[in-house]
Amino acid sequence: MNGSSALVQADDTVLLISEDGKRFYTRLRPGHRQNTHLGVIEHDQLIGQSLGRKVLSSTGHTYVVVEPTLDELIKEIKRNTQIVYPKEAGRIIFMLNIYPGRRVIEAGAGSGALTMALARFVCPTGRVYAYEALSEMLQNAQINLDKAGLADFVEFKLRNINYGFDETSVDSLFLDVREPWKYLAQAKAALKPSGFFGAIVPTTNQVNELLIGLKAHDFGGVEVEEILVRGYKPAPGRLRPKDVMVGHTGYLIFARNIEPNVFPDRSLRRRGRHRAGLEDEELPD
Amino acid sequence: MNGSSALVQADDTVLLISEDGKRFYTRLRPGHRQNTHLGVIEHDQLIGQSLGRKVLSSTGHTYVVVEPTLDELIKEIKRNTQIVYPKEAGRIIFMLNIYPGRRVIEAGAGSGALTMALARFVCPTGRVYAYEALSEMLQNAQINLDKAGLADFVEFKLRNINYGFDETSVDSLFLDVREPWKYLAQAKAALKPSGFFGAIVPTTNQVNELLIGLKAHDFGGVEVEEILVRGYKPAPGRLRPKDVMVGHTGYLIFARNIEPNVFPDRSLRRRGRHRAGLEDEELPD
Amino acid sequence: MNGSSALVQADDTVLLISEDGKRFYTRLRPGHRQNTHLGVIEHDQLIGQSLGRKVLSSTGHTYVVVEPTLDELIKEIKRNTQIVYPKEAGRIIFMLNIYPGRRVIEAGAGSGALTMALARFVCPTGRVYAYEALSEMLQNAQINLDKAGLADFVEFKLRNINYGFDETSVDSLFLDVREPWKYLAQAKAALKPSGFFGAIVPTTNQVNELLIGLKAHDFGGVEVEEILVRGYKPAPGRLRPKDVMVGHTGYLIFARNIEPNVFPDRSLRRRGRHRAGLEDEELPD
Amino acid sequence: MNGSSALVQADDTVLLISEDGKRFYTRLRPGHRQNTHLGVIEHDQLIGQSLGRKVLSSTGHTYVVVEPTLDELIKEIKRNTQIVYPKEAGRIIFMLNIYPGRRVIEAGAGSGALTMALARFVCPTGRVYAYEALSEMLQNAQINLDKAGLADFVEFKLRNINYGFDETSVDSLFLDVREPWKYLAQAKAALKPSGFFGAIVPTTNQVNELLIGLKAHDFGGVEVEEILVRGYKPAPGRLRPKDVMVGHTGYLIFARNIEPNVFPDRSLRRRGRHRAGLEDEELPD
Repeated sequence: MNGSSALVQADDTVLLISEDGKRFYTRLRPGHRQNTHLGVIEHDQLIGQSLGRKVLSSTGHTYVVVEPTLDELIKEIKRNTQIVYPKEAGRIIFMLNIYPGRRVIEAGAGSGALTMALARFVCPTGRVYAYEALSEMLQNAQINLDKAGLADFVEFKLRNINYGFDETSVDSLFLDVREPWKYLAQAKAALKPSGFFGAIVPTTNQVNELLIGLKAHDFGGVEVEEILVRGYKPAPGRLRPKDVMVGHTGYLIFARNIEPNVFPDRSLRRRGRHRAGLEDEELPD
Repeated sequence: MNGSSALVQADDTVLLISEDGKRFYTRLRPGHRQNTHLGVIEHDQLIGQSLGRKVLSSTGHTYVVVEPTLDELIKEIKRNTQIVYPKEAGRIIFMLNIYPGRRVIEAGAGSGALTMALARFVCPTGRVYAYEALSEMLQNAQINLDKAGLADFVEFKLRNINYGFDETSVDSLFLDVREPWKYLAQAKAALKPSGFFGAIVPTTNQVNELLIGLKAHDFGGVEVEEILVRGYKPAPGRLRPKDVMVGHTGYLIFARNIEPNVFPDRSLRRRGRHRAGLEDEELPD
Repeated sequence: MNGSSALVQADDTVLLISEDGKRFYTRLRPGHRQNTHLGVIEHDQLIGQSLGRKVLSSTGHTYVVVEPTLDELIKEIKRNTQIVYPKEAGRIIFMLNIYPGRRVIEAGAGSGALTMALARFVCPTGRVYAYEALSEMLQNAQINLDKAGLADFVEFKLRNINYGFDETSVDSLFLDVREPWKYLAQAKAALKPSGFFGAIVPTTNQVNELLIGLKAHDFGGVEVEEILVRGYKPAPGRLRPKDVMVGHTGYLIFARNIEPNVFPDRSLRRRGRHRAGLEDEELPD
Repeated sequence: MNGSSALVQADDTVLLISEDGKRFYTRLRPGHRQNTHLGVIEHDQLIGQSLGRKVLSSTGHTYVVVEPTLDELIKEIKRNTQIVYPKEAGRIIFMLNIYPGRRVIEAGAGSGALTMALARFVCPTGRVYAYEALSEMLQNAQINLDKAGLADFVEFKLRNINYGFDETSVDSLFLDVREPWKYLAQAKAALKPSGFFGAIVPTTNQVNELLIGLKAHDFGGVEVEEILVRGYKPAPGRLRPKDVMVGHTGYLIFARNIEPNVFPDRSLRRRGRHRAGLEDEELPD
């Protein structure tokens, strides 16, 4: 991962866009090369050069080299697997209170889409503990993290989380598994007091099961939400939403490792204030 | 800002929640005290203690001490001013490719809500250049950043951005001003090649003006979107969306400092596939 | 209910709007009068006059007389009770295939908001059978329907629907009760073959129970949906969504009294085409 | 169009669903026949029989005969043309105050999708005046209305509405044309006092133009809104929204032929009440 520089450096992950719009993600290493449908590009053609400039492939085709955003890196993973929550990832980072220096557990890591986001924001001094039960998946995640230059900040663990987590007192913990309510005791044991819990599930039935579990395990500050991103066609003079939008990826559930009564149910408070006057703080945002 | 620890430390920003649900945000300093409606709490009562534990105020009332999330810190600012995009902030971080080590310009900083998010993710090695034209606003932003322990990563500048930015080759630049289309030449001069541009505006008319401007200034990869967060009442057995939701805060516009033709219009590509693959009957209406 | 006329007639339901924006709904009858906070208006001042004109109250205050829309009539009921689905009503009319001449059962009628919409569209030759278990509610509904001039098209029945419906072979049937899954045998007995079933419930748990019931009772063509209406501030030059929107009223469930296999699950068909035509990258996320 | 009957009658429009899920819409006439990919069905096989029953085609394949809903009829038109607002149609009926006996103008009729909904709800005593500038379109609309058994309630007019409308004092008028703001004088001349105006346009720029026009022509009670229908997968135990949803069809604009000051801007009133306490009536629904 590069820091702030307009010059491309070795170990940077770059995005090569061909003249016909095809995209190639690659991590630059001296002496390496990228094969494409329109010829070969030597990494050494790029290292030390400016971002945004055009380069010619071995067959004379034009490529532009840019930095990929985290959003693009996640979408690139998404295209190849079923991991689908780029639009949720930014929200998760916020709600789990992720930032440089934090220690966070993720299970299951899947192909590493969220792992990538977590690693990028806890680095350089924090750590992601990425649990995954399937070895093929885990290898895939490791490849993706390495490609993005973020593998150094992640400890991958091939493990069924039924047996618990190795870490204790982590700041945050995120579950992307089918039945997250089965691992709440383990989650609680790993989290520090007042630590941040999160999960994503696709169905309302799963949300319900998880809410029952969170209550049984005395988690506080429970919130459930969906993120909808509505894209627009960026045509001046003809601005309008896109015809089709993503209808659903999943429900996000957040909670804290603290007694429930510390965070009183805002819905109840809202009802009272709804009658008396609706204050900003009461609305979701 | 604390890193990863279950013990509260000096200089940490904490959230004190009273037994009747009132919230107090404070940055801990040895010898300091927090006055509340239910008595006084000495910072020294908290420093070195565990998060999540209860403390008694001078009048014997119970308080719980927890870490505030970035979301809560932003909402705390929001309550006092009109800066209103906590739900957009996570998305902005992603789309502007913010992460530790980056250099980013923000104008106008307002009361520092987004500044806080930017600072938290570029630290410890990056930098936020926060421009603001009103001195009262800027002072308020400084106080808020200081309270959050993030002021060290921000350079505040009292300046009308009509005169341009001091920095060049920054990674990202965000405009939260009334007429962002007036400052695109300045933005372009400050951004590195392929750098990331973002803006937020409340009305469709402003989006339209900005789209015209971005085209005129040869920005590429333009995207326009809205973020909708739909909250649910977290009641097991009675799961349902909240009655009221935020209908609008603003439109987000993103672009890159790169020739437009590098990022072909995805809408056009989609149209073709729309005809080829997705038939009307398949969509709900 | 008036037909098409620009002149106000006896028995018309009109909306009087005061110069300070207060609204009064009344059904005009010769010799009657409307008391307001700004004086009295004689119905005879209005009968035979043009819509849209101004009239003076007994104390010299200005009122404008207009036709109320169905939407306004429903909102007027809503203001006084908890019946809250004006935005769903138009969709229900469509999905239950309501039109002049149809026979439809509704239970429970509540205060008559949906009854009003059903009556207005089945008239003059159709019929609404409105069941309600609470006598006070039923009286309120009758008053509301009478006020709207639609009572002639409704048969009100004070009844617990546990004992079934009197009618058979009705075209459509709508349940607005807490546990609609308990009355599906009764509903099926009342509906004609291929007749239209509908229900509204607030929670996902209720939707789930109802889906189980509809499957057990061999209903076909099951659909579940939510209607979101997003209002805009109608300011030329500053077009933008309203700050706050209704987040939820209820989930609509529709089905037909016909074997499930006649209406194959469109979701399954869609999945196939989704793979064939619409790629992930085309969707915003 | 049939009224209320469980027996299929001559002139009814029915929907035939084949054993492999193909759909055929036809209006039944004695002696006629429906050709399908799985053999022929004689209309006389259906007339006088019960809805919902199975019939065999000439080649021994099974068909089920059901009533089509208005929603299905509109979608059937939609599949063949670009007319795309089934989800808006129910809302338009409500907001234009359409019901049996009303007189309504529609321009342009396109292929008759909305015409069908208007005709169905003004019948048997009302009237739709359907203007369309393209003769091919108009013929298509006439065929569609005839097929639905609703042509008797519509007067089709091949006309450029620039020259105005023949009718005066109509209850409601709907514009589905590219530049509706150009025909507001004509609309005003055709509408009765306090009559109902509506329009649909796809872009925000068009909404803005129309808002300017409505203000210039002294229309009151202006409202702008979007309808979003969110479909769910109706699977018991796995209830969740569909993956993809319609992101946009158009913006609906409604107004009344009455002085603007009669309907004060609710946004302004809302702001005041927002501070003081948010009442139900203030929220869009």
